[in-house]
Amino acid sequence: MSLRPIAAFTPPSRLLLGPGPSMAAPSVLEAMSRPLLGHLDPAFVEIMEEIKDMLRAVFRTENRMTFPVSGTGSASMEFCFDNLVEPGDEVVIGVNGVFGGRMAEVASRCGAHVIRVEAPWGHIIEPAQIAAALDGRRPKLVAVVHAETSTGALTPIPEIARLAREAGALMLIDTVTSLAGCPVELDEWGIDAVYSGTQKCLSCPPGLAPVSLSDRALAVATSRTHKVQSWYLDVNLLASYWGAERVYHHTAPVSMNYALHEALRLVLEEGLEARFARHERNHHRLRAGLAELGLEIASQPGHQLWQLNSVTVPDGVDEAAVRGRLLRDFGIEIGAGLGPLRGKVWRIGLMGESSTADNVDIVLNALGQILSENAA
Amino acid sequence: MSLRPIAAFTPPSRLLLGPGPSMAAPSVLEAMSRPLLGHLDPAFVEIMEEIKDMLRAVFRTENRMTFPVSGTGSASMEFCFDNLVEPGDEVVIGVNGVFGGRMAEVASRCGAHVIRVEAPWGHIIEPAQIAAALDGRRPKLVAVVHAETSTGALTPIPEIARLAREAGALMLIDTVTSLAGCPVELDEWGIDAVYSGTQKCLSCPPGLAPVSLSDRALAVATSRTHKVQSWYLDVNLLASYWGAERVYHHTAPVSMNYALHEALRLVLEEGLEARFARHERNHHRLRAGLAELGLEIASQPGHQLWQLNSVTVPDGVDEAAVRGRLLRDFGIEIGAGLGPLRGKVWRIGLMGESSTADNVDIVLNALGQILSENAA
Repeated sequence: MSLRPIAAFTPPSRLLLGPGPSMAAPSVLEAMSRPLLGHLDPAFVEIMEEIKDMLRAVFRTENRMTFPVSGTGSASMEFCFDNLVEPGDEVVIGVNGVFGGRMAEVASRCGAHVIRVEAPWGHIIEPAQIAAALDGRRPKLVAVVHAETSTGALTPIPEIARLAREAGALMLIDTVTSLAGCPVELDEWGIDAVYSGTQKCLSCPPGLAPVSLSDRALAVATSRTHKVQSWYLDVNLLASYWGAERVYHHTAPVSMNYALHEALRLVLEEGLEARFARHERNHHRLRAGLAELGLEIASQPGHQLWQLNSVTVPDGVDEAAVRGRLLRDFGIEIGAGLGPLRGKVWRIGLMGESSTADNVDIVLNALGQILSENAA
Repeated sequence: MSLRPIAAFTPPSRLLLGPGPSMAAPSVLEAMSRPLLGHLDPAFVEIMEEIKDMLRAVFRTENRMTFPVSGTGSASMEFCFDNLVEPGDEVVIGVNGVFGGRMAEVASRCGAHVIRVEAPWGHIIEPAQIAAALDGRRPKLVAVVHAETSTGALTPIPEIARLAREAGALMLIDTVTSLAGCPVELDEWGIDAVYSGTQKCLSCPPGLAPVSLSDRALAVATSRTHKVQSWYLDVNLLASYWGAERVYHHTAPVSMNYALHEALRLVLEEGLEARFARHERNHHRLRAGLAELGLEIASQPGHQLWQLNSVTVPDGVDEAAVRGRLLRDFGIEIGAGLGPLRGKVWRIGLMGESSTADNVDIVLNALGQILSENAA
């Protein structure tokens, strides 16, 4: 059991242009190095309140039950299903990539009867598909991934949310990659439940996961027949911790909350509209540059994400070798394809702090150089 | 939805002598401000391996399934029960404080039939009580809190673990407050499952939660009839993420892992035996000083924790007022009593970096001053 002495860790310098984490602003990283406070300290309680306020502004909602779950994005996905679904409930879930599939799996572990609405990876879930699934059904919940990180497709939400509402169902969306990178309008769209992550367009390190529940969703979660299967994620308990009572539940990740506080401040300082426009602009810059290299974006035209770009790997090119060279020789991280897209696409993230014209040019130059050497 | 501009947050200076978080070393705080890496980056994978190695050394185990859960202590408690318990399983749980009660609640949400073995708050769970509960039973699991943070009692584990083993049960212990503050000997004691937290005697900010499963426990978790109810905490999936395959599961909290890496390094640099001796020494210094003030430790004599001291509030003294003055006028955080001990005890933590002779003197002086003013 004797262990060699282990040296302090100094991370190599990386330009993070993968599916997350994205680059964090220096002030966000610095925030985590500030002195710790107790999680029930009045000064910490104050920033808990500010975090809730800022999250409401970013989600564009008045939902009082808006806060960061003390885990990563997948924990907040579980938070939503664990609280809203009881054994035997019928739920309709759009599956057009990894995260739709994960939602179906999580829902079924809550005892749900899952109706899967499938689309090819890279395509969106069409409202007509949801309408067909709802025909003759009164499910508890309809769930769709807004921005599929695994494919780069952006499913339009308003029409699907309207259909869900008409069927008497709660509407749940995954905004892990969309939040703060393109419009997310909880109240205008009529969303009942949403989860997200910190390490994408919020440009905060991974470790927290914002959620929001409408009063309608909260009423469902607080009047259940069965207890929520997760104690850690039970909103009936979390409401008192993040609410005025401050009843001890768990110990919130204090330093991560410092980081999220600072990251949200920067998002609102830039302004959501300006931030969306920046993401759009840099996506177009990337797309134009890729075209010059003879490369194209793999996801459905007209529904391509600004912040996460799946790029088709040309025939005869070794996907992993190119990605490896980008990391090793240029210090640039991009992502691999997942599932059926494995080996077929690269995923280039331009999220939050990572979305700059300079970064677009840097990755295009590096990619161009590697591909031209390959061709030589 | 327009929000006032929110200022950057500068935490006030606090001396953390409560039930956690404890003070973090400057190099641990600084580690979190280092540049982010992707969670599948080879350089990050390397420190994941080092973290696992160092956790094994701190837990004193050879268990390969030893890693930090991406959540706080209560998430790691759920990790253990979610993976080891199936609906209908019988489990024996020692309940002598908040965290024993929480284990019983979490187990019952997994569908367990829970046999509670109760002791008064502040007392230990006696081996004879466990023996009586096991008489004529073959439960799946016996679970006990090693160091009860809510009361300051340290339950001796070896004899209880032996009884569990003889009854064919897995032995699970909560070491949230004990790990790295007093001896924890997984392999020598024959422990099958353990969970902990980072923000106590490891002196790392909250946000990760170390766990370890013996091969026997892992075999139970990987040959279940029902799927693990939590996807996020399913060891069948986490094993491939934290194992050699590095299959994408969730996005690990990168910066928190930097902090844990540095915190574990400092623990091993000091040496476990030296660290335990320091905790013991400062506990005795505190106890002697409290006696001079006419105060005494509330938990069972002979089984008092070194790192968390419940102090009986004298008759006629307003518990919350004293605690409030310590925070406001001296910048010192100590903890309140919970449950039946609410208003009756203060909890003074001397955990990890917080356990120094100077800190003992500082809190004794402040407490003495406040109490003498009260008496005047």
